[in-house]
Amino acid sequence: MDAFQDHYPENVSHCYGCGSKNKHGHQIKTHWEGDETVTRFTPEPYHTSVPGFAYGGLIASLIDCHSTGTAAAAMYRQEGRDMDSLPAFRFVTGSLHVDFLKPTPLGELTLRGTVKEIKGRKVVVECTVFAGDVATARGEVVAVQMPESFGQS
Amino acid sequence: MDAFQDHYPENVSHCYGCGSKNKHGHQIKTHWEGDETVTRFTPEPYHTSVPGFAYGGLIASLIDCHSTGTAAAAMYRQEGRDMDSLPAFRFVTGSLHVDFLKPTPLGELTLRGTVKEIKGRKVVVECTVFAGDVATARGEVVAVQMPESFGQS
Repeated sequence: MDAFQDHYPENVSHCYGCGSKNKHGHQIKTHWEGDETVTRFTPEPYHTSVPGFAYGGLIASLIDCHSTGTAAAAMYRQEGRDMDSLPAFRFVTGSLHVDFLKPTPLGELTLRGTVKEIKGRKVVVECTVFAGDVATARGEVVAVQMPESFGQS
Repeated sequence: MDAFQDHYPENVSHCYGCGSKNKHGHQIKTHWEGDETVTRFTPEPYHTSVPGFAYGGLIASLIDCHSTGTAAAAMYRQEGRDMDSLPAFRFVTGSLHVDFLKPTPLGELTLRGTVKEIKGRKVVVECTVFAGDVATARGEVVAVQMPESFGQS
């Protein structure tokens, strides 16, 4: 399925969390399901906090990239534009907040995001991490549109 | 130099962020400098957001593990106990907040933490990330003492 990240331009495609060109990274893929955005990701066995449970920094990383991707997709959707159209909407994280609700077991995780607010160059995204049907973490990201030139050589 | 993480017991030593036994992980090392706690860490070249700049999820991860380590060390210090003495103080992250102040260039980073509050089983830690002398991110972690049995088989 076509993911938001498949439309990222060169300078964003090296992100450790979501860049398709970062061979060492997580390469997360996010797409719309109605008004929600969804990412599915299975941590590696070594992404542990304590044995059997997922590392909180990974969970924060997934929330971060899921949410900046959601912010970009939401801006395109609001303007009725294709994600390949120019100028590109790309976002950086202004702030990231994560509440860890309970330990997250290793295994496939599902992140579900919603757009809370779009205000000028800012998009606020809420995101919940599920292990099976159980919500284990909840995040909020304030994503800020970045200058198109950032990170371009 | 002796680091907090060198005193972590088995079940915490597999953490991807700070466990000395996680061969794939960051293995951060934190120590006291007066009333501050300090971690120095150099991201890998592939820990990028956009080329030349450090990945926000990594920065959040460093803040997270630096702060839970600080929480443990602060509890031992408050009780005048050696970090190897029992019962062990180990902390999980209740919540993590990061404000990204400006892009963080790749290169050695220094995290400096202070204990904002100790209240029962909770420790609130503030942490700033520096690239050289420039503060690029600021975090706050609410760390919660974890049951000693968590993650033990």
